Amino acid sequence: MEAKGVQDFYPEELSYCYGCGRLNEQGHHVKSYWDGEETLARFTPREYHIAVPGYVYGGLIASLIDCHGTGTAALASYRHEGREPGSLPPIRFVTASLQVDYSKPTPLGVELELRGGVIEITSRKVISEIRVLANGVTTARGRVVAVRMPDSMLIK
Amino acid sequence: MEAKGVQDFYPEELSYCYGCGRLNEQGHHVKSYWDGEETLARFTPREYHIAVPGYVYGGLIASLIDCHGTGTAALASYRHEGREPGSLPPIRFVTASLQVDYSKPTPLGVELELRGGVIEITSRKVISEIRVLANGVTTARGRVVAVRMPDSMLIK
Repeated sequence: MEAKGVQDFYPEELSYCYGCGRLNEQGHHVKSYWDGEETLARFTPREYHIAVPGYVYGGLIASLIDCHGTGTAALASYRHEGREPGSLPPIRFVTASLQVDYSKPTPLGVELELRGGVIEITSRKVISEIRVLANGVTTARGRVVAVRMPDSMLIK
Repeated sequence: MEAKGVQDFYPEELSYCYGCGRLNEQGHHVKSYWDGEETLARFTPREYHIAVPGYVYGGLIASLIDCHGTGTAALASYRHEGREPGSLPPIRFVTASLQVDYSKPTPLGVELELRGGVIEITSRKVISEIRVLANGVTTARGRVVAVRMPDSMLIK
């Protein structure tokens, strides 16, 4: 059975994100969950997600980092508050800034791992660092500054 | 008639980029060209390219900045060398790093403008700054470090 991602607990109206919303039929459905002290998401790019033939498109890598960064922020905030995802009020972050360094080409045709760690956490902001791995080798690193949506936007 | 982008002059084998390759049938087909001293690309997101309903997905914005950044790098290099796009050898850049700051939500349903300027240019590296505008208002800013593919990879 597929692991549940923190995105599976986002309120319905906030679950249409192209990168990670469970209700966006065309989207990527990134799911972020804990793997020990790191957060993890897995994604296999499609054959058309290419930069140059054989290698993954950098914009897709940035997109995956973006969504796993906001997912990591939500996971870390639930843990920080001693709560489980799904408890109320829901926690949802948006991206304020994104930095991606492409250290080597990312090969197409394999499942990618995104591994996240928290650099800084406050009640309204989480900074995370995300590594992208292909065949166990880090090919890109991202830094995501995520800011929390106010509760007033989250409960109707 | 649609303006030709610098991407229309990329060699065939390097024209499959999901973001800007003219030969990627599923891709975005970003086209970058000069508009005076700035570079310009236009893109209208699809209805499913959403972050939260009504607003454009940040990963798509990062993708557009990425491709317009490498396109800006190619345009600036041709101009720097006193050559026209299409002259040989072709010039093609790849992204080394990408920084995106989302200053406000980008509304869905309008054509976006990407306006680029060159911060630094050498024979092997171009740093550009890209603004994303919706209805004439800047909603995100990017900084792209693009490095040149060696000529040996470009001519078979």
